[in-house]
Amino acid sequence: MILEKLTIIKVGGKVVETPASLSALLHQFNAIKGHKILVHGGGRTATQLAARLGIESHMVNGRRVTDKETLDVVTMVYAGLVNKTLGAQLQALGLNALGLTGADLTYMRSEKRPVGEVDYGFVGDVKEVKPDILGNLISQGVVPVLAPLTHDKQGSLLNTNADTIAGETAKAMAPLFDVTLVYCFEKKGVLLDEADDESVLSSLNKEQFQEYVTKGVIQGGMIPKLENAFDAINAGVSSVVITRADALIGAGTVIRKA
Amino acid sequence: MILEKLTIIKVGGKVVETPASLSALLHQFNAIKGHKILVHGGGRTATQLAARLGIESHMVNGRRVTDKETLDVVTMVYAGLVNKTLGAQLQALGLNALGLTGADLTYMRSEKRPVGEVDYGFVGDVKEVKPDILGNLISQGVVPVLAPLTHDKQGSLLNTNADTIAGETAKAMAPLFDVTLVYCFEKKGVLLDEADDESVLSSLNKEQFQEYVTKGVIQGGMIPKLENAFDAINAGVSSVVITRADALIGAGTVIRKA
Repeated sequence: MILEKLTIIKVGGKVVETPASLSALLHQFNAIKGHKILVHGGGRTATQLAARLGIESHMVNGRRVTDKETLDVVTMVYAGLVNKTLGAQLQALGLNALGLTGADLTYMRSEKRPVGEVDYGFVGDVKEVKPDILGNLISQGVVPVLAPLTHDKQGSLLNTNADTIAGETAKAMAPLFDVTLVYCFEKKGVLLDEADDESVLSSLNKEQFQEYVTKGVIQGGMIPKLENAFDAINAGVSSVVITRADALIGAGTVIRKA
Repeated sequence: MILEKLTIIKVGGKVVETPASLSALLHQFNAIKGHKILVHGGGRTATQLAARLGIESHMVNGRRVTDKETLDVVTMVYAGLVNKTLGAQLQALGLNALGLTGADLTYMRSEKRPVGEVDYGFVGDVKEVKPDILGNLISQGVVPVLAPLTHDKQGSLLNTNADTIAGETAKAMAPLFDVTLVYCFEKKGVLLDEADDESVLSSLNKEQFQEYVTKGVIQGGMIPKLENAFDAINAGVSSVVITRADALIGAGTVIRKA
């Protein structure tokens, strides 16, 4: 059986929050043929809003510690400002956008992360994605726009990393569609030298990744992003790419199984 | 042809923002048989957030003057905090909630209000509701949760009165469903004496309404609410009621055509 193509684009906060890169992204996204899903972040705007409200942002290993007040902030920024701004822009381009959190149609269910060394508060680990719900929407020509918030089915919204949402969605959709997952951020791909924007790795396998991590070439937020990427490519996603907003297709670093 | 029942409940900000009345509302809403849609406000929370951000709220005739900064505030509060909090609570009760603004699936299109005596800024007047989009969702068991934001199909979100959204949705759905529209707020219904919560009018027609307005018995925000109500009952909506969150059905003030 030949599966229909589905492209899932994850865009980081910096891309969405800068008008020039947002505009480049939306036009590139619009040009993609076939079914598509947009997943977005918004962490920088959340941090700015929190600061204006006198709420301190605590990050541990690149993840936001989310108390009740912070949950309200990220709900406002992710599900409100960023999600609806993107949705309105996509609609203006003629794409039938539908903004979703995990609480909408419960397409994704999570559980509050258990308290370990760190108590992340209202942070959710994804437990279930219902591919039929998204598949049904997509087949009707809808473009889901996924905010990084999930739901525990018990009334609590939970802050959830957008890279993880993109990866889990891609994996869940892989049996139904020929899925391409694109992590799109402000760099041209995975760089060998952070200071040299042209030092893009054309491809990367798990062994190379581990070597680069050991050497300190790959570090920080790129590590969980790449772990999500390897997780996806090993779970049946056809293609996983890390690239920049103005070059969504045919550029960047291709993630390889082996 | 016998049409299926659809109940549209509009809840005001005070109801949603008070945990006790919100809980009462959600249980009453859950108990309603047949198709249903929830429409919510959130103006008080928006005013509070604006104040915390140092943004002054300007109201003219009970409507918020919405500059760009204020549009961001209401987008965060209405589409983010209030809409998703309600959605998560409904999902926990087993209702398949889906939060929508006018930019989602463009089920509702508006135009920026022309500048007259007052420049309301980013405020939208509803121009079109697509009943098939909501009808299709409802028929699949989805419970739409409508935030008071619309879209001009050109990329701009527009702040839109929630009573109007409820009324326009009810009117648009009336050819497809047997629609009951319930405006639910903190009072038991339309009161003859604001100070006496028991002085509820059991019914009200347009002639009586105009008389009460002339006498000053009905005033303020109740006037546009009732104008929406009469507009709906005269446009084919089967039943329009104004009532309190803890008595959604079989109570309050019934709006009569004549």
